[in-house]
Amino acid sequence: MDMQKFCFGVDIGGTSIKMGLFADDGTLVEKWSIPTDLAENGAHILSDIAGSIQEKITQKGMALSSVLGVGIGVPGPVDENGVVHKCVNLGWGTTDVKQKMEALLQLPAFVGNDANVAALGEMFRGGGKGFSNLVMVTLGTGVGGGIILNGKIVHGSNGAGGEIGHLHMRDNEPEPCGCGNHGCLEQYASATGIVRLLKRYLAAHPEAPEVLASPLSTAQAPSAKQIFDEAKQQDALAQKLVEEVCDLLGKALANISCVVDPQVFVIGGGVSQAGDILLSGIQAAYRKYAFHAAREASFRLAELGNDAGIYGCAKMVLE
Amino acid sequence: MDMQKFCFGVDIGGTSIKMGLFADDGTLVEKWSIPTDLAENGAHILSDIAGSIQEKITQKGMALSSVLGVGIGVPGPVDENGVVHKCVNLGWGTTDVKQKMEALLQLPAFVGNDANVAALGEMFRGGGKGFSNLVMVTLGTGVGGGIILNGKIVHGSNGAGGEIGHLHMRDNEPEPCGCGNHGCLEQYASATGIVRLLKRYLAAHPEAPEVLASPLSTAQAPSAKQIFDEAKQQDALAQKLVEEVCDLLGKALANISCVVDPQVFVIGGGVSQAGDILLSGIQAAYRKYAFHAAREASFRLAELGNDAGIYGCAKMVLE
Repeated sequence: MDMQKFCFGVDIGGTSIKMGLFADDGTLVEKWSIPTDLAENGAHILSDIAGSIQEKITQKGMALSSVLGVGIGVPGPVDENGVVHKCVNLGWGTTDVKQKMEALLQLPAFVGNDANVAALGEMFRGGGKGFSNLVMVTLGTGVGGGIILNGKIVHGSNGAGGEIGHLHMRDNEPEPCGCGNHGCLEQYASATGIVRLLKRYLAAHPEAPEVLASPLSTAQAPSAKQIFDEAKQQDALAQKLVEEVCDLLGKALANISCVVDPQVFVIGGGVSQAGDILLSGIQAAYRKYAFHAAREASFRLAELGNDAGIYGCAKMVLE
Repeated sequence: MDMQKFCFGVDIGGTSIKMGLFADDGTLVEKWSIPTDLAENGAHILSDIAGSIQEKITQKGMALSSVLGVGIGVPGPVDENGVVHKCVNLGWGTTDVKQKMEALLQLPAFVGNDANVAALGEMFRGGGKGFSNLVMVTLGTGVGGGIILNGKIVHGSNGAGGEIGHLHMRDNEPEPCGCGNHGCLEQYASATGIVRLLKRYLAAHPEAPEVLASPLSTAQAPSAKQIFDEAKQQDALAQKLVEEVCDLLGKALANISCVVDPQVFVIGGGVSQAGDILLSGIQAAYRKYAFHAAREASFRLAELGNDAGIYGCAKMVLE
């Protein structure tokens, strides 16, 4: 009988590193996390990961030969050779993560951008199951994205494949985006972006009836969640804002479909917990803007939450 | 010694079908064309092509076993299985071109959208030589596009991959695009689109000094070529229009790079004969809008002209 094989998935974040042990059929056997050590420009991160994996191998009494490899998601641009091109959150400059991890563990390593890897995870075991051409949008503090074609991540020549938070949506945006440009999708459709739209609306129309009638106009620190909750309660101001955000997202996804024409769009990240009001709003706007041949693309909510990354990392190893 | 091998490239257009015989190293041995028979909803097109290929094989005294296959470019959406999803120009409904051509010729057939195939041709032997991740933009009567990743065409799940003429660029566009939407890139950046921008400028600013000073204001039937020619002669009105078109194209290509992050953009089609004034204008606008990691993408003019299609068709067979 063949020996059972395993792999590890590792999703590196700015505060913690999520880790998973997977069976070779993609079943998550165990997950845990370790803190991200940002000291010395993140110099210890990769050896901390290797140490935790070695510990798990020993603890489980696994043979090294039963481990197929390690998949790693990194919050920065990663090219198709597994080289990270600067990762500000971790303090890294250009880093050959694949080569370093293979040297540390004597195991094959596979590296991808965190949002791209999450997209792969959702295709593997989440909202995109059964599809091989998929675009995932992650609406969180920022807006991330991942493009999967023929079951493979589109890394891009500079690791900028799927950077859909930085699609240019509006001319004449006065504030700069975190990336330095002006008018990026992320400036409107992230959790902070939606709140920005609210603040601007309040400032521009302080006496409008929908403003005066809305609890959002007097909220101390309104959140994206609160805006979606009020919209579900038929608050007119909140509904206007949700419509504005969905219109921008639908337009952005319609433009993406003119480039890669995916079968399905998967919407994830914290903001996606708003659920159907968001999904159906984006879908309606998409149908309005999309090229006719691509108009019937499917829309799904992400299903794996914070585990999408480790599932995608496992998939990089297993495919 | 091995027998010399060959393949055929076939680029179907609305009035003529361009055909090429290629050696297996990609050298064009001979090219010719036959008229496109639009009678009976294009029912004779595929058998006309098969007949012309068989004639050429006989005429050259070639063994059928020396022919590796036939590549075919079609002016409509083609999925990755070689099925055409409606082709208005030829009168076709959904047509399994791959299967039909293989049955007619008893040779392997490969099918792609004409703009996608032209992109592959430019990668193979033209302005994109040496690159494997490439986006081609064809500025002609319409705006076409082709996306090549890892040396392969991105067909898209509905054959709408690379339909970049239908990127949504402007809200509140009053006229409909040929596709039925409003505000598509093609409405401004095609040969007719540039002339549309001129007419609108003349109507909106009839007494502006740059209008009164420009020969374009009195031209009977101004063309895109004339606008670029006047811009090269420092005509202020023409320069404004060229800048507007380049800004739109640079913005569109920057958005494409947030999706697939190519190494190079290749600009082709009749409008690209304007040359450097167009290429450098697009590149400058692109650098302004692009995500920082992708800002240094290369820009090239297409080199194969009307032969790009047959070269790309040959490449589909030879790869």
